[in-house]
This record gives sequence, C-alpha cells and structure tokens, in this order.
Amino acid sequence: MIDRLFLSHAPWFLASVGEDANIELASFLMSGVRVLLIFGLAVLLAEILARFKLPSILGCLLAGVILGTSGLHWVVPGGAAASLSPGLVNAIAAISHATPAEIIEDYESRFIIIERIGGLGLLCLLFLTGLESDLDELIRVGFQATTVAVVGVILPFILGMLGLIYLFHAPVIVALFAGAALTATSIGITASVLKDLGQLSSKEGQIIIGAAVLDDILGIVILAIVVALVKEGNVEFSQIAYLILNAIFFVGGALLLSRYGIPFFNALAEKFEVEGSPVMLGVMVIFVMAMVAMGLRLESALGAFAAGLVMGSTQLAKQLEEEMKPLVTLFATIFFVLIGVEIDLSLFNPLEPSNWPGLLMATFLIVVAIVGKLAAGFAIFGSDPVNRLAIGTGMVPRGEVGLIFVGLGTATGVLDSTTDAALILMVIATTFLAPVLLRFVFSDTSAPANLKVKPDAGG
Amino acid sequence: MIDRLFLSHAPWFLASVGEDANIELASFLMSGVRVLLIFGLAVLLAEILARFKLPSILGCLLAGVILGTSGLHWVVPGGAAASLSPGLVNAIAAISHATPAEIIEDYESRFIIIERIGGLGLLCLLFLTGLESDLDELIRVGFQATTVAVVGVILPFILGMLGLIYLFHAPVIVALFAGAALTATSIGITASVLKDLGQLSSKEGQIIIGAAVLDDILGIVILAIVVALVKEGNVEFSQIAYLILNAIFFVGGALLLSRYGIPFFNALAEKFEVEGSPVMLGVMVIFVMAMVAMGLRLESALGAFAAGLVMGSTQLAKQLEEEMKPLVTLFATIFFVLIGVEIDLSLFNPLEPSNWPGLLMATFLIVVAIVGKLAAGFAIFGSDPVNRLAIGTGMVPRGEVGLIFVGLGTATGVLDSTTDAALILMVIATTFLAPVLLRFVFSDTSAPANLKVKPDAGG
Repeated sequence: MIDRLFLSHAPWFLASVGEDANIELASFLMSGVRVLLIFGLAVLLAEILARFKLPSILGCLLAGVILGTSGLHWVVPGGAAASLSPGLVNAIAAISHATPAEIIEDYESRFIIIERIGGLGLLCLLFLTGLESDLDELIRVGFQATTVAVVGVILPFILGMLGLIYLFHAPVIVALFAGAALTATSIGITASVLKDLGQLSSKEGQIIIGAAVLDDILGIVILAIVVALVKEGNVEFSQIAYLILNAIFFVGGALLLSRYGIPFFNALAEKFEVEGSPVMLGVMVIFVMAMVAMGLRLESALGAFAAGLVMGSTQLAKQLEEEMKPLVTLFATIFFVLIGVEIDLSLFNPLEPSNWPGLLMATFLIVVAIVGKLAAGFAIFGSDPVNRLAIGTGMVPRGEVGLIFVGLGTATGVLDSTTDAALILMVIATTFLAPVLLRFVFSDTSAPANLKVKPDAGG
Repeated sequence: MIDRLFLSHAPWFLASVGEDANIELASFLMSGVRVLLIFGLAVLLAEILARFKLPSILGCLLAGVILGTSGLHWVVPGGAAASLSPGLVNAIAAISHATPAEIIEDYESRFIIIERIGGLGLLCLLFLTGLESDLDELIRVGFQATTVAVVGVILPFILGMLGLIYLFHAPVIVALFAGAALTATSIGITASVLKDLGQLSSKEGQIIIGAAVLDDILGIVILAIVVALVKEGNVEFSQIAYLILNAIFFVGGALLLSRYGIPFFNALAEKFEVEGSPVMLGVMVIFVMAMVAMGLRLESALGAFAAGLVMGSTQLAKQLEEEMKPLVTLFATIFFVLIGVEIDLSLFNPLEPSNWPGLLMATFLIVVAIVGKLAAGFAIFGSDPVNRLAIGTGMVPRGEVGLIFVGLGTATGVLDSTTDAALILMVIATTFLAPVLLRFVFSDTSAPANLKVKPDAGG
C-alpha cells in the first residue's frame, strides 16, 4: 500500500527491488511529456492568437487537434492508446526500459487521471463564471435570457428536424435526435471566451450566461424525451415531469441558498484563521452542489455554476476569484485541449467521396445551428440597447455539450454514420467559429466593457 | 471515446441508454464524499490547531488518521478498498443503484486519481518552497547546511545500526536497513511547517531546507548502497559513483540554470500577453526538472524544488508564488491527509502483547531519530547567533520519505514484522512530534521573522 502511494516519488528505489519501476518511470515520463505538449502548445498558440485579439480557447482546441487524432497522435483519447505515435512510444521505451506494449497499456489505464483533471477544470471554470456573475443582474435579465434560451432551443430543433426529414429523407427518429443535438450550447466555451473578452459581466454577457444555463436544462429535458422515444417508443410523462420538477427545485434551491446562505458563509469566513481555509471551503461547495445536481439527474457543471453564484455574494468572493483563476487556467486548458484531441478532421476531407453526404448534411446543419441561435438573439424584444448579434453568437458554440449529445446518439445506435459525421462536423464548426465571431461582434458593441478586450499581460 | 471523456458530466444520459451510469454516479459520489471529508476535516482541525498556534499539517495528518485505516475507514488506501466502511458503501449504493461490489471495485481502480493529485501537491509544495527560498542565502548557508545534513545522516545511521545489532540482536542486514531509514528527513513536512510559522526565509529556515535537500540526496545514495548489499550481497562501486555523479550533475545544472536561465525566462515573460501563460510556464518547468531528476534516478520532488529555485529569481516569481498557493493548499492537503490515512495506530496499542517488542524497539528508534537530528543542529560550528535547536528539530520529521524507505524495506522482504512495525512507529512519532516541537522552538528564537507566527487570516 505504501508502495502504491509513493511509487511515483521513488521509482528508482523500486527499480532496484525489481518492482515494475520501469513502467512507473515510463508512466511519469508519458504524463510529463503530455503536460509539456499540452501546455507548451496551448501557451504558444494562445500567445499568437492574442496578437490577433482572438480568444485563447481557440489555441487550446487547435493544440488538441495538432497533438491528437487529426494530427501527430502524441496525445490520443482514452481507448485509442494503440494509435499513439510509435516514435513517442519508442522514445519513452528507450529511456525507461519498459516495452512499447507496457507503455500503451499503462497509457490506457492512466488516461482517466488527466481526463478527470480536465473535468475538474470544467467545474472550476463554471464556478468562476458563477463567481463573476451578478445574481441580481442575472435575475434582471432573466426574462430576456429565457427568451433567448427558448427560441434558441425550439428553432434549431424544428428547423433541423424538418430539414432532415424533408430535404435528406431521414427517418423521423434520426431527425429527432439531430434536432435535439442542435439545441445544445456550450456554456464552457462561451464563458471562457466572454472572460477573455472582458464581457462576462456586461449585460450581453449575463444574458448569454443565463440563457446558456437555461439551455442546458432545456436540452436535458428534450434529450430525455427523445431518448425515451428511441428506447421505449413512447414518453412516460411522469419521468419528464420529474425531471422538470428537479430542474425547478435545483434552480429555486440555488437561488434561495444564494439569498439566505450568505450570512452563514460570511460568519464562517469571519472565523477562519488559516490562510487556506477559504479555497478549501469553495471546493467543498462546488462538490456539494455538483453532487446535488447529479443526484437530481442534472449536470455537475450546473452545480458548479450555482456554487459560484452562491459564493459570489459572500465576502469570500474576491479571494476565491483570485485563487480559482490559476486552477481554471491549468485544468480548463487540459479540458479544452482534450476536446481538440478527440476531433477527427478527416471527416472534412472533400477529396474523399464517402465524406460527401456527410459534408452536405453538415453544411445544412451548420447553417441551421448558426441561424437558429442568431435568431434567438434577435428574439429579444423591447428597445434596450443590447447587442443582439453578440448574444446570438454567444449561443452558437456546441462544444462539449454537443459532443455529449452526439456521443449519446452514437451509443443508442440510432444514428447512421452519415448523420453521425454530419453532427460531429456541425459541433466542430460551431465550436471553432463562435470564438472568432464573438471577438468581432463584441468589438462592435458600444458597451463600456469592450475597452478591456484583452486581459493585462502578466496581470 | 466521447462517452469516456464526458461520462462524468452526463451520467443521466448514459443511464438512459443502459451504460454503466450507476457506477459512474457512484464513482462521482464517492470522490465527492472523499473530497468533502478530506477538506472538511482538514479545515476544521487546522482551524482548531491554529488557535493553539500549531501548524495546519498536523490537522491534515490527524484528519487522515480519523478517516482512514486507524479510524472510520471512510477513506482507505488503494489496495484496501475491501476495508471501506460498509455504511458508506451502502449509502452510496442506495443513491446510485450500483452494487456494493461494483462500488468497491470502482474505488480500487479510481483511487490512483486522488493519489496522483496528492503527488502533484507534493511537487507544487516543493516548487513553492524553492520559489520562496533565496538561492544566494542557500549558498551562503551551504556549508552549515552540509554539516547538518551529513551529521544528521551519519549519526542516526550509525547509532540505529549499532543499537539494533547490540541491543536487539538484529541481523546486520536488518540493522543496515533500519539505519538507512533513520537518515530520512521529510522536506515536505518541514517546508509546510516553516511556511506556516513564517520561518521559511529566516536563516534557520534556509539552513533546514538546504540540509533537507542534501539529506534527500545522501539518503538516496545510502539506500542505493544498502539495497545493493541486500540484493547482490555486494556493492558495485561504479553504480554508486554513477549515482553520486548524477546528483552532482543535477545540483550543478540547477545552479547554473538558476544563474544563467533567468534572462531567458525574463525575456519570455516580457513577451507574454495572455494572463494564464506564466502559471502554465511554471508547471512546465516543474515537469521538465522533475523528469530530469527522475531520469537521473533522483526524486521528482528534488526536481520540483530546483524548478522553484530557478523561477524564484525571475520576474515571474511574485506572480507564480501567488498562483501556486491555492494549488498547494488544495493538493498538498490531499497528500498529507493520505499519509494519515495509511497510518495504522493499532501498532501503538500497549494492551496488545504482540506489540511489545515493536514498541520497545520503536522507543529506541524514536530516541535515536530525535537525538541524531538534534545533534546535527548543534554540530553547526562558529558563533553565529542561529537557533541550533530549531534547526535540529526541523530535521526530525521522517514523513513521506521515511515511509518510502520503510516501504522499500518491506518490499525487499528484508524486514521482519517487529522491525517493520518499529520503523513505522518511528516515522509516525517523528512526523507528528516535529510540527509541535518546531512551533515551540521557533517561538523562542530571537529572529525577527517570529513576529509573523501565524499567517494573516483570510490573507
């Protein structure tokens, strides 16, 4: 047991007693190389993109594409360790004296560690987003956000479904699924870009975040309905009602907690004498809320956002914001690079005739995906001077949520390979386009926040 | 593949397509509960101990003891998942609908994630220690630190070995091993306590850190000799020379890098425009140095310390210090709590006659362990007004390094169960005693640094 815990610190000792220290050294080297590749390339690309005032998340996604499935195969997803670059595996084998087969097996079994650290990154990012959000402002724009979310879910769903049925002659069940996948909005990508552009606390930013949160909840409900249809052939109303009640319960509970839990947290904060207590408290609140969200069959990311919203009104907000930032930088970078790693750009190759049906369908889906969400932005009524184009654009990226939806469709066996490829292409295209578009639509905005387009260097 | 990456964010979707979502929910709940228990208890105990001006690391160790092998079995080491508290397993089974057997199997396979995060905590702590160390001061006290390290290695080694041979009639090979285990100093625990007491950059603090680093290197060499004796029956001089050359090469290389690498890092820092680049650069330097250290058959922790020393002289030092602190707080807490989790206090039970020989031998070893290191402090010559008692006390805790040494002895099969238990008791006693003693010996010091005995609340 002791060996297990400290193995990674004492490989040489264990080598000398004949334990599998070569593998441990190989394992450490592989994770070290992975960290260097991920951070090295992410920093380099983010710095280059910053010269063009483009958000750093693009650099993460591109770094993943370069390192991953579509590129060098130096970082491959779990389950695909066999496709690791032989050059890399052999280099590590040469230094560590482990065999290539051992290295690949170890990669497979240990990849979960970096996946989970990336997952923590998403939770931390959503927590920070919640921290920097203003609950009163969110409530103030609640009606507008709801409009954006509802239109942005219904429009892509209906347009996508009808289009697939009438233009592409897809079966209804496939069209339903594709429609559902079109409803997603990646709150992670949107929040990351808004943060980079200094727009998170602008009115537009808060409408986007509010709408993205509601979109997440609506998406879960729609998927529940679609999956029930696929699996059972009909929808149990009680199950859907249960889910909707859960969502209402969760949002209501989080609002109540952020109103009435604050004196408790402030009293606790007054009592703290140890420097590290606030950040540990923050992480505890993240996990409590994430566990509650998951217990209610919602997403852990929603829980983390709610946790941030709650803590953001306490006197610890400023300190937590400072202390969570490096965690977000490190771990969310891993999260977004791993998304890039999964992306298979060969589906885009127009020289491959087998890609043509997918590309055609993808073109349609991409148009629907963008138009549907842009229309949602323009659905905001009233004569408020808000940047409707920016809001619609903020809802465009499907990102990790879109990938979950498509992955689910693949898992159910509903999607044929053409629709599967087309949906993945739609997710990729919106994910890459949105950060670029957001940067331009926000530079047109007249809101004062656009003065801080770029964070201070070294700040 | 997509499922694998996002499984933790979408358990409900996968439940509905019949994947093993119950296990995923159970897995998330288990890690959530573990995080809550570890941080909750660590914060509570650290806050209580702070009232008595005791270092927070004691709280971590105690939290581990309460939660772990000696206590509630709510957090157990990897490999011991079967001993998990049935109450906890059943509660999670009830919520997640996974079976207890599935939960235990999942715990076993996923425990490595939290172990590795704890391991990162040690690296971050050593990096921060290096950052806050002053290279010039370290070189200035180099001769004194060397004296402390050499005496603190030789004295416990010889006293322990001779005592075991002549008082306890142990075989020479067992005595050799026990002597080697007595040489260890836990740089992690020492650094953590010094940080808490605000003594890291005092002259005493720098002598302790310098000596602990040298102690680590000497310990590795001694263990290499002992292990070679155990395994081969003789020592290959070339192997030992190789190791010593490696150590010299590493220390020399780190010194050169910290002298001449600084303009490079400063030039890089000037170019950074993205807020997150410095902390990612810092982590990359940690991993490069840790990999070099491990490639040279030294410890990764040494590499992290050297990385901190290098970056500490750059213009990024201040920012990195700020940004690494929350990482250290979170991850080093996990590291130290997991040490506590491994501790089996039942070995201390004096009502159990089978413990008596171990307790007797442990008493002897503890005395040697403390006296040997205290003497090392008093071995500093000259009439400088340094607190020799504090320096000796700083070298006392064996901590994680001691556990590695003992674990190695167990792995070679050299140690009988009595010596094994006695050595573990020695490690536990010195680990728990040292933080308490340090607090008192430093409150006597006349150095100005003792004004900031406690870090600012909420700072």
